[in-house]
Amino acid sequence: MDEEQLRALLRDLDALKQRPDPAAIDRDMSSEVVDSNPYSRLMALQRMGIVDNYERIRDYSIAIVGIGGVGSVAAEMLTRCGIGRLLLYDYDTVELANMNRLFFRPDQVGMTKTDAAVQTLSGINPDVTLESYSLNITTVKGFETFLGSLKARSSDGRNTGVDLVLSCVDNYEARMVVNQACNELGQTWMESGVSEDAVSGHIQLLVPGETACFACAPPLVVASGVDERTLKREGVCAASLPTTMGVVAGLLVQNALKYLLKFGQVSPYLGYNSLKDYFPTMEMKPNPQCSNPACVQRQSKPARDAAAKAKMEAEASAADECPVHLDNDWNISVVDDSDTVTPSILSTGADSLPEGLVRELPTADSYQEPVAPVTSGAIDDDLEELQRQLDALNSS
Amino acid sequence: MDEEQLRALLRDLDALKQRPDPAAIDRDMSSEVVDSNPYSRLMALQRMGIVDNYERIRDYSIAIVGIGGVGSVAAEMLTRCGIGRLLLYDYDTVELANMNRLFFRPDQVGMTKTDAAVQTLSGINPDVTLESYSLNITTVKGFETFLGSLKARSSDGRNTGVDLVLSCVDNYEARMVVNQACNELGQTWMESGVSEDAVSGHIQLLVPGETACFACAPPLVVASGVDERTLKREGVCAASLPTTMGVVAGLLVQNALKYLLKFGQVSPYLGYNSLKDYFPTMEMKPNPQCSNPACVQRQSKPARDAAAKAKMEAEASAADECPVHLDNDWNISVVDDSDTVTPSILSTGADSLPEGLVRELPTADSYQEPVAPVTSGAIDDDLEELQRQLDALNSS
Repeated sequence: MDEEQLRALLRDLDALKQRPDPAAIDRDMSSEVVDSNPYSRLMALQRMGIVDNYERIRDYSIAIVGIGGVGSVAAEMLTRCGIGRLLLYDYDTVELANMNRLFFRPDQVGMTKTDAAVQTLSGINPDVTLESYSLNITTVKGFETFLGSLKARSSDGRNTGVDLVLSCVDNYEARMVVNQACNELGQTWMESGVSEDAVSGHIQLLVPGETACFACAPPLVVASGVDERTLKREGVCAASLPTTMGVVAGLLVQNALKYLLKFGQVSPYLGYNSLKDYFPTMEMKPNPQCSNPACVQRQSKPARDAAAKAKMEAEASAADECPVHLDNDWNISVVDDSDTVTPSILSTGADSLPEGLVRELPTADSYQEPVAPVTSGAIDDDLEELQRQLDALNSS
Repeated sequence: MDEEQLRALLRDLDALKQRPDPAAIDRDMSSEVVDSNPYSRLMALQRMGIVDNYERIRDYSIAIVGIGGVGSVAAEMLTRCGIGRLLLYDYDTVELANMNRLFFRPDQVGMTKTDAAVQTLSGINPDVTLESYSLNITTVKGFETFLGSLKARSSDGRNTGVDLVLSCVDNYEARMVVNQACNELGQTWMESGVSEDAVSGHIQLLVPGETACFACAPPLVVASGVDERTLKREGVCAASLPTTMGVVAGLLVQNALKYLLKFGQVSPYLGYNSLKDYFPTMEMKPNPQCSNPACVQRQSKPARDAAAKAKMEAEASAADECPVHLDNDWNISVVDDSDTVTPSILSTGADSLPEGLVRELPTADSYQEPVAPVTSGAIDDDLEELQRQLDALNSS
């Protein structure tokens, strides 16, 4: 190689060094109002005073566990919103029997749900980093991978860990596993569910140590007027509707956006009874006697102080980056409950529930006792009794 | 031709005569619980006692006006539910700026929204008959075609007219045109809307002569705490979110399914305030002084008697086909308001609105008057005043 060739090589090397690392480029979301801008209608949220800094959505990572009727739609909504990074978990494959819910297409039958989701989502918005985990989190190995992925650095090196976990699974065991992982990590998560008769659903915010965890109390479900026990038999084919699942996914992702982008009030619990278009809401405090040791540990004063300190520091650094709007005329703030009548329920020993909500399972203490037969109309009577108890609670 | 050939031809002719007309075949929806059955989870609604006869959905035709963020998702939900026939109306084309809502894909940019919708929907469920109308219903010619198509016989000869019209348009003028067409035809319809700040929405049931029509009173919108007038300026780029639009589409189609398949309670009006997860509901009676002559005509006693008679006959013939379940333990029925506290509002002159609802426009009488400047907090004060008026109304 002669000197001239060597000089040319060195020039090329210098030029390459000047080129910025693609992973480090922070592509702006344009707010330009033109038909060719996929973000114009989202950036308009800033101009209209709803969100202070919409672009922060690019810095967030969300894990979605369960890519079924709710999880797949939640993933699509977040992808279209321009979320930074999505981690998708499911072990199942797409079947024709899934076609009565949104998202999957008949030509994807036989693919794993995570692969099919990545195929569709990357076509919709290539700006989103997608990580696909085709595994069962309820196995020992699956749980290890799940836990590790929630803590890991993203492939582009921009993020470590996730900002929120959305549980969109369809069974109790998987929810308990998500609960265990989030309690261990001190990870805030949101749970969602749809009843097996397809006509009711709910979402719930869980902050380890601050709210009830999933093991603190028997899960709450929205009373649909159908005997829940008839729906829980092995081998029963659950009904499902794209409407109920679309509404639950919408309420879930809306709550996630409010939590991450700091607008409106984040709902601690929101139910949906589609037969009556009734939406019960409530709050649940953690149970000091919770059967989950990680939950009890998170409830301890040192743990809560440390969490509060970390949160304050994160908020202070966020405030440095982006000052909060000064003209917040409407006093929109996160979880300002001063003027709401949401009943706050201590999960331990509290039998009073808001109208329209029932416990999915008996309490741990009564779990072995035989359940009295439910007669026609009994649930309506229960609701009236619950309402009386709630009224008494509110007036005292 | 010899006798043998002639006999063979006659045998062929007889065989062909035995073959049923494909248009007349009523393909059953299988309720078999196998992964390859796209209807198993819908037919399960029958087994669980939610719906008496799910298969009736195949006999229904629905028109969707406006295939945008709400209409496209509504069309997909109905397609996946196996609706018999969908008529789709829009004059717009797909743009990248639509990608922040569900349904359309970047590779469909430039196609008409109706063509893109037919492309996607026919791939999802080939059992649904799709009719695509790429036209502007607010033009004279467009209105004529629109009106004609709502009355016409379906291409397969099975249906005449439509069973329900869903309005998913984004402007006042188009809503008034749908209102005009439905008043002229005596056609029940449902209206939907999302605010320009993307954080609230509503659905409404309109039955000509029985409920308020869209011209009976200024339209009601859900108060979002943002001055509505700042959002109405020409050229302002409206914000939108896939979450709000997904929720509104879900509530709309759920209401349509409840109306057509006769389960649960059909909501006359349901609002969605996403900042507070608040869902106001109400009813509105027609205005005898309505500016729409077709509405006033529908309110007349002979017109209402004729409509009631037609409805009774239709229900009697439906009952012959399919007897109502005898063990309706939960007293699920359509619009049984005996035990609800929904405020019923006479649309004329009634200034009392449920909490969280405001009129989108001033009343017709005050339309020319200058609007007083809105000061910070005024809407919250208005809400408190409205609540006081409502309380007074309920206690009287």
